[in-house]
Amino acid sequence: MITFLSDYGHEDDFVGVCHGVIASICPEARVIDITHGLPRHDVLAGAIVLRNALPYMPAGVHLAVVDPDVGAVRRAVALRLADGRILVGPDNGLLSLAAAARDGIVEATDIGRSPFRLAPISATFHGRDIFAPVAARIAAGASLADAGAPLDPAELVVVTLPRPARDDDALVAHAVYIDHFGNVQLDVRHEDLADSGLRLGHRVAVQLGSDAVHAQFARTFADVGTGELLVYEDAYRALAVAVRGGDAAERLGLSPGDELRIRPA
Amino acid sequence: MITFLSDYGHEDDFVGVCHGVIASICPEARVIDITHGLPRHDVLAGAIVLRNALPYMPAGVHLAVVDPDVGAVRRAVALRLADGRILVGPDNGLLSLAAAARDGIVEATDIGRSPFRLAPISATFHGRDIFAPVAARIAAGASLADAGAPLDPAELVVVTLPRPARDDDALVAHAVYIDHFGNVQLDVRHEDLADSGLRLGHRVAVQLGSDAVHAQFARTFADVGTGELLVYEDAYRALAVAVRGGDAAERLGLSPGDELRIRPA
Amino acid sequence: MITFLSDYGHEDDFVGVCHGVIASICPEARVIDITHGLPRHDVLAGAIVLRNALPYMPAGVHLAVVDPDVGAVRRAVALRLADGRILVGPDNGLLSLAAAARDGIVEATDIGRSPFRLAPISATFHGRDIFAPVAARIAAGASLADAGAPLDPAELVVVTLPRPARDDDALVAHAVYIDHFGNVQLDVRHEDLADSGLRLGHRVAVQLGSDAVHAQFARTFADVGTGELLVYEDAYRALAVAVRGGDAAERLGLSPGDELRIRPA
Repeated sequence: MITFLSDYGHEDDFVGVCHGVIASICPEARVIDITHGLPRHDVLAGAIVLRNALPYMPAGVHLAVVDPDVGAVRRAVALRLADGRILVGPDNGLLSLAAAARDGIVEATDIGRSPFRLAPISATFHGRDIFAPVAARIAAGASLADAGAPLDPAELVVVTLPRPARDDDALVAHAVYIDHFGNVQLDVRHEDLADSGLRLGHRVAVQLGSDAVHAQFARTFADVGTGELLVYEDAYRALAVAVRGGDAAERLGLSPGDELRIRPA
Repeated sequence: MITFLSDYGHEDDFVGVCHGVIASICPEARVIDITHGLPRHDVLAGAIVLRNALPYMPAGVHLAVVDPDVGAVRRAVALRLADGRILVGPDNGLLSLAAAARDGIVEATDIGRSPFRLAPISATFHGRDIFAPVAARIAAGASLADAGAPLDPAELVVVTLPRPARDDDALVAHAVYIDHFGNVQLDVRHEDLADSGLRLGHRVAVQLGSDAVHAQFARTFADVGTGELLVYEDAYRALAVAVRGGDAAERLGLSPGDELRIRPA
Repeated sequence: MITFLSDYGHEDDFVGVCHGVIASICPEARVIDITHGLPRHDVLAGAIVLRNALPYMPAGVHLAVVDPDVGAVRRAVALRLADGRILVGPDNGLLSLAAAARDGIVEATDIGRSPFRLAPISATFHGRDIFAPVAARIAAGASLADAGAPLDPAELVVVTLPRPARDDDALVAHAVYIDHFGNVQLDVRHEDLADSGLRLGHRVAVQLGSDAVHAQFARTFADVGTGELLVYEDAYRALAVAVRGGDAAERLGLSPGDELRIRPA
């Protein structure tokens, strides 16, 4: 079983060609596309989506490619996690949140010069020429040791997410991921809500810079009227902001990294 | 065999996560994506596409999720049709046109508290937490009775389509579905054309409110010049309006539900 | 193994319905989607993408549908190539570049009246009614002779690409394909570069009509600064023009067919 996530989009043949390479090497592999619609070159968004989606994927080889520095000095890697899953992709932090959420990395291999690469190798499409063939060979039974040169996991690039803070009665949160409906996932996890004073069904004030708006702390979209703002715990147990039937990121002018202060109203 | 239709789009991981859930529960299931590009929250469009596509799908479990009221009081259901197919989705009418077109429902189950749900269950992503796992368990051999609580099929929500009428020499039709090329499917079926006076290769007048345009009643796009309007029987045997190489919905300002009067010119 | 390429897009059920037809006829067939995001009705773009992608696909039946004249007089065909691969699609040149790149066609069949067609056949969706079922039956073991009437391969429609020329020190190239990132593939192949005077890491002048811009002849995007123009050999070994992190087609106002003169700066 192989899963595949990228920013390749569906307009060109990039995703299809990687599927072809995998099927040529390991015809019995089944490939699940997590998504290929990530914002182009957005490593952090890819890292978050991979971390969020992985618990719902059967264990196997997890191929991920968001690779703005393809062909440059960044490493290409295959990682074995403590739970046995294998991650394959560029060493730019894309794999780091998923690895950290799953008890870390027990074995790392530099696959930049892997014997499993296609030849001739291109400088701009390592998804096809390195990552897909290495993932397929590992799915077919090859070991990480066969796939390249050993690497110290401590040397790998990591991305870090902001963490929420407290400021008097306010939870100081940050936008971390915006889905294509405009729902804004924050860096506030279920466990951060414990003494926030936020109560389901009650109103909250959401402050962005010097502006403040009101929203309802709700369970689901249908708990508020159409066009109204809600704060809710999303399907990945993160606090999120949405507009029922609308686009909260656009309404509030929010981008990833922006700070919001949330307090009981 | 499982088919899957939704309005989740391809930009996020929603579709991929449902595939992951299905593969985790029933690894041998094969999943065919009917489409995930439906207009967001458009239950009627989803119901039409599911009805149209189902005859071309192998019999199996047919998962459909267009669910604007996720987490609210709407029921979640699994239905067994007279022809043996199983439909799984929200009880908001999404499944109703497909069921009616296939001799109706012989068994219905409320799966809102199904033992097959994932835990913890979210309030906003029942595709992942209820519909996909229930579909996968049924595909793996579980019965509808095991999937939840029995339900009287007569209680299910249905959507109804407009029906064409006659007004002197005019066929009073309505736009029901607009595809992404702007082709406009009407509520006029092959059998409604019998005494319409429309003759293939001849001109027809299409009246929208007080405006009228002319079109050719043609077999296919290539029967008219580029940029010209045609009325034709589409691939699902419904009357439709198109512009060769163009967008008829935009040209005529048509939305689903709009009335058109069509008569020989 | 079946591969599938089209301009159907992902918003409607066209692709899904073809998958359903294939699975109904040949349940054991595995289908790889090369892409369905081709520009609508762009036969030349489809021909280029099919030619580029095919070497990365396992041998099998290769279904391709970009069919602006569906239902009109254009033929529907199945072709056996010298290397054993089978191509199925409309006879409008879509298959011709892939066939020419693979030592040509050894057997051709007109499948317009194939016994494998679905009935009733529509005039507007031959992907569903002719191409997918014929591809599935061939994948299931049927011969080309069974699929329709024999045809002289010399009668098939071909598309031709521009070829680069030399004009003093300039390479006279043409844009042939623009991907959705705005990278512009030219008609210059690796072997055309031999005595071009272009040297990796050096600057080149790119002349469009009377305007000229400078770019670097680079290996990969990361070799130039963000927002800078590069000329590079792309992953299909064609010369291409890109902007790092940007859209070269938009920046330079390039469309397929446009002429560019490239010379050492």
